[in-house]
Amino acid sequence: MKNEQTLILISNDDGITAKGINELIRMLRPLGELVVMAPDSPRSGAACSLTVVNPVHYTLYGQEDGLTMYSCSGTPVDCVKLALHSVLTRKPDLVVGGINHGDNSAVNVHYSGTMGVVLEGCMKGIPSIGFSLCDHDPDADFTPLTDYVQGITRQVLRHGLPEGVCLNVNFPLAPRFNGVKVCRQTRGQWQQEWVPCPRPHKADYYWLTGSFHRSEMGEDSDAWALEHGYVAITPVKTDVTAYEMLDRMKEWNLKF
Amino acid sequence: MKNEQTLILISNDDGITAKGINELIRMLRPLGELVVMAPDSPRSGAACSLTVVNPVHYTLYGQEDGLTMYSCSGTPVDCVKLALHSVLTRKPDLVVGGINHGDNSAVNVHYSGTMGVVLEGCMKGIPSIGFSLCDHDPDADFTPLTDYVQGITRQVLRHGLPEGVCLNVNFPLAPRFNGVKVCRQTRGQWQQEWVPCPRPHKADYYWLTGSFHRSEMGEDSDAWALEHGYVAITPVKTDVTAYEMLDRMKEWNLKF
Repeated sequence: MKNEQTLILISNDDGITAKGINELIRMLRPLGELVVMAPDSPRSGAACSLTVVNPVHYTLYGQEDGLTMYSCSGTPVDCVKLALHSVLTRKPDLVVGGINHGDNSAVNVHYSGTMGVVLEGCMKGIPSIGFSLCDHDPDADFTPLTDYVQGITRQVLRHGLPEGVCLNVNFPLAPRFNGVKVCRQTRGQWQQEWVPCPRPHKADYYWLTGSFHRSEMGEDSDAWALEHGYVAITPVKTDVTAYEMLDRMKEWNLKF
Repeated sequence: MKNEQTLILISNDDGITAKGINELIRMLRPLGELVVMAPDSPRSGAACSLTVVNPVHYTLYGQEDGLTMYSCSGTPVDCVKLALHSVLTRKPDLVVGGINHGDNSAVNVHYSGTMGVVLEGCMKGIPSIGFSLCDHDPDADFTPLTDYVQGITRQVLRHGLPEGVCLNVNFPLAPRFNGVKVCRQTRGQWQQEWVPCPRPHKADYYWLTGSFHRSEMGEDSDAWALEHGYVAITPVKTDVTAYEMLDRMKEWNLKF
């Protein structure tokens, strides 16, 4: 009966019609009561953005036993904030983002709307997990992820997560996985990010694209895990202070 | 002559017409050559979001000796990416975001488009600073910030910043400051975040608002510094790995 009391809030950045979130719902239904509040259209690259200049609204999208789905006009973070405020009658036991169609490892954590969901859940003091598959195909096969998504979710429900820590889980594009690695974020950067899009009689427009170049690949990094067929779990913190700088900057002259 | 070789890229999230960015330009002109690429309209709360579903464009907005300004259709992060790709002929010595009309301390770092500018510069390996004033007034008085903005910028140009570290500088709303504190991000969360906006014959819309409740205020925190009239410099890192969890999660059963 314990499962019936577990309440899980789900959102994503690919929108409520994406295969990834619907597969996530299928996987998590045995684990508890699900409330879904997801963007009404794709919000890839939404990061932790908020809707500030317009009001936000939501509508009931579907309802079954143990599952209620809402479609929302806002960003992924808006979805979490609005569900917590307007829809849920109690604080959920878990916030889950995904399953994202695409890689959110390395610096992508900063751009990802899926991780926006997760960081927002975490900032609200709720254990939160993001799941992403390194495959942009809208019809990607999520079936091989099932045991891992359920298993990792159960472990988080069991162990909890410390305040200010959430999980960024990335699955390699593989029919089978070699296991799980708990790892750190790889260093590197995006390059060659713009492709001109010619416009008649006017200056070019530009499409964002690019390729990620890692500057290292230690065996403890998410890049190494993914390249070697492992599911990469990167614990992420919301306190982004560079603590090592606090002492170091004492040598600076900061009297003006 | 050294100053003439210093190249500074500036952007913000309040848009190119905001007083804050124009005041920042005034303050930094004595320090080097400035290139500005800023959003064509306000993008508050843009975080590190990217424009993915549309192409992005920019136009020349103004040009004077040592200053070139572009207006861009994209997000703050798009502005930095596009300037680095299409406008600048060499890597700038510095990326500066701001001056933001509003507080970007504590968890606001995650939602801030100004800090999006700064994190993007940092992820591109460029020393980067964000300046924010705890005053949302479009006509706020930025004059008292001048010596601090120039002084902190000069110190960063002199000392550099380690890879993956940038600065989040917040000014209290005060006519005079008690000095500078290098500090950590305060813990806390936003609450009461939505105000219903009734819509005739339909479900309510919601405006995002809310108040930030800090859960602590250690003397080493940005909240303490700001409340005591100090300029708060929080060093921020782009590696968000929760390293302390890597060992801790070894006790979890992650075999599925």
